[in-house]
Amino acid sequence: MRATVMYGARDVRIENVPDARLIEPTDALVTVTRACICGSDLWRYNAMERSETGNRMGHEFVGRVEAVGSQVRKIRKGDLVVAPFAWSDGTCELCLEGLQTSCLHGGYWGGTKQDGGQGEAVRVPLADGTLVALPVGPDHALMPSLVTLSDVMGTGHHAARSARVAPGKVVAVVGDGAVGLCGVIAAHRLGAEQIIMLGRHPARVALAREFGATDVVSERGDAAIERVRELTRGLGAHSVLECVGHGESMRTAINIARPGGAVGRIGVPQETEIPASHPAFFRNITIAGGVAPVRAYIPELLPDVLEGRIQPGRVLDRVTDLDGVPDGYRAMNERESIKIMIRF
Amino acid sequence: MRATVMYGARDVRIENVPDARLIEPTDALVTVTRACICGSDLWRYNAMERSETGNRMGHEFVGRVEAVGSQVRKIRKGDLVVAPFAWSDGTCELCLEGLQTSCLHGGYWGGTKQDGGQGEAVRVPLADGTLVALPVGPDHALMPSLVTLSDVMGTGHHAARSARVAPGKVVAVVGDGAVGLCGVIAAHRLGAEQIIMLGRHPARVALAREFGATDVVSERGDAAIERVRELTRGLGAHSVLECVGHGESMRTAINIARPGGAVGRIGVPQETEIPASHPAFFRNITIAGGVAPVRAYIPELLPDVLEGRIQPGRVLDRVTDLDGVPDGYRAMNERESIKIMIRF
Repeated sequence: MRATVMYGARDVRIENVPDARLIEPTDALVTVTRACICGSDLWRYNAMERSETGNRMGHEFVGRVEAVGSQVRKIRKGDLVVAPFAWSDGTCELCLEGLQTSCLHGGYWGGTKQDGGQGEAVRVPLADGTLVALPVGPDHALMPSLVTLSDVMGTGHHAARSARVAPGKVVAVVGDGAVGLCGVIAAHRLGAEQIIMLGRHPARVALAREFGATDVVSERGDAAIERVRELTRGLGAHSVLECVGHGESMRTAINIARPGGAVGRIGVPQETEIPASHPAFFRNITIAGGVAPVRAYIPELLPDVLEGRIQPGRVLDRVTDLDGVPDGYRAMNERESIKIMIRF
Repeated sequence: MRATVMYGARDVRIENVPDARLIEPTDALVTVTRACICGSDLWRYNAMERSETGNRMGHEFVGRVEAVGSQVRKIRKGDLVVAPFAWSDGTCELCLEGLQTSCLHGGYWGGTKQDGGQGEAVRVPLADGTLVALPVGPDHALMPSLVTLSDVMGTGHHAARSARVAPGKVVAVVGDGAVGLCGVIAAHRLGAEQIIMLGRHPARVALAREFGATDVVSERGDAAIERVRELTRGLGAHSVLECVGHGESMRTAINIARPGGAVGRIGVPQETEIPASHPAFFRNITIAGGVAPVRAYIPELLPDVLEGRIQPGRVLDRVTDLDGVPDGYRAMNERESIKIMIRF
C-alpha cells in the first residue's frame, strides 16, 4: 500500500510500505477515506532529524472497516469510523475518567512501528475502545467536519473545557490556526459572551468572526496584552485558549487572563518550561490542558456536527489526494492553507 | 510604638516607629495581641537588599479594635479581630468571586508605607472588608489556631482546594513547613483517602502523621518521585500541594501528579518559570493556586477551629515576645522552629 513517510525536515515522501493487516485479536483493519495534515506535523516538518527508516505520518482519519480481529465486539466490518489521534482501550481507569490519551494500554499512530493516517490503510489497535462508528456514508457532505473530530475540533474543545469556558464568560483565543479556530467554535458552543481572537491573518480572522469571535486583536506581545485588557475593562479574560505552543504565546496567554482565570493550553509546548510563573501565581491563574482526549469528546460533539450546529470542517480550506501530501505540508507550513484534507 | 523593621538580609530590628493611627474613614486601628513570623518572611530574611528606610514586617495578626473610622459599619471598637495577610474591600467583583488577594482596592501589610503585624498596632485599611471578628477573648486557649487563619491555615486550604482535593482522593504534600502541615490538615478535612507527606524533618513528619498523613516519603528528587509512584499503583496523586516554591519542588510536584491530576501551588515561586512543561502537558496536569485568598476561607474554617475539629495552632511550636522576634527569624531560618507566635 502507499503511505506518507517523513525522512527529515522538509523531506516528505509517498512510498510503498507493507500492507496494513490485523495482528492482535483486538485490531481492526481500516481503509482510509479521508485524512488530514495537522499543524503539529509541521513541528516535525521543520525540525525532524534525518532518519534512515523514516516516520510514518498522519493521525487524523476516517475510514471503512475491512476486517476485525476475533475479540472485537462493537466495531464491525463495513462500518465507517472516525479515529481519534490516539488509540485507547476504553476500559482502564484513566479511560473511564475520560483521559484516553493517558490510557494505560494506548498509543499513537505513525512513527516507526505503527501505520499512520496519511496512508491507504491502518491497523487500528484496541478497535472497540478507539473507533467511533459514523451513521453516514464515506462521501457524505459533512465529511470535512467529521474528520475534524479526529483531532482539531476535539482539541479546540479541550482547550475550552480546560480554560473553564461557560455561559457568560469572556474568552480569548491565542492562535488563528485550525485548532484556534475550532477553539472559537467550542467557546461559542459553550456559551461564551465575548470571544477575543488574537490573530492577524485576514482569512483566518474572518473565519473566526463567522465562528463567533466578537473581537479581533492583531497586535503582538505587550501591545496585544494591553489591547485585550482594554477590551475587558482592565481585567482580562476568564478563559484563555493557548493554541500555539511557543513560550511567547504562553506568556501572552497568562498575561491576558483575568485574576482567578484559567489558561487551557493545547499547543504542543516547544520549550521545557512554562513562562510567567509570577504573574500566574500572584493572580491565581490556573494553567490546565494538554494532549486532548478527543476520544472522550466525540460522543458529545458528533450530534452537533451531524445536525449542522457546528461546522469545523470549514477550517479545511484545501483538498488533495495522497500524491499531493508533500506539497500540502509545504502549503500549510507557508500558511497558504489553514489545514488540508486528504481524499483517498 | 514598637515594631519589627528589616533593613537587609539577616538584619531584623525592633524599633520605635510612628504610632499607628486612623487616616481614612474606612480604617480601623488595631492593637496587636498575637502575630507570627512567616516562612515567606524568610525569603526576604535571606535575600533582602540593604535599605536605608527598612521594611516593616509581619502580615499575620490578631488584635483588639481600638477605634474605627466614620465609614466603618461592621467592625466595632472592642472587637477582637483576625486579619488576613492582605486587605480588601470585600465589595469589588474580584472580592465577590472570593479572590480578595486580587481586590481592586486592596494591598499588603508592611513594607515602607503600611504598618506590619509584627508591631504593637496596625492601621487596617478597608476594615469592614478585611477584618473578621472573633467570638472569644484575647487570651483564649485557641489563640494559636485562630492566628493561623491569617495565613498558613487558609493557605494550606487554598493549596488543597486548588489541587481539587475531595473525598476519596490520593493527595501528596510537598514541603513539611507550617503551610505544608496545614495542607495536610486541609486535605484530611476535605476527605482525602491517602495523604503522602514528602518531608524528612522528624518532628514535622510526626506532626504530619497526627494531622492525617498516611505515608511519609523522605527521599528527594527522582527517588521521591519513584517512591510516590510505588505508593500510588504507579499512577501518582490526584492532588499535589506544592508548599515550597523552589523549581525543584515544583518539578517533583508535577511529576508525582496522576494523569489528569492537579498541583495546587502556594509556595511563593523563587524562579520566573515553571519547570516540567512537557510532563504536565502530556499528562494533562493542571497547575493551579497562587497567593491564597485567605479572607474568603475564614468563615469556612473558623467554626472548625472554634469547635476543635482542626488544630492548626500546633504548627506554632515556639512563642516569643516582640523583643524575641529577631532571634525568632534566626530560629525559623535554621529550622529549629516550624513557626513562631509573637505574644504582645
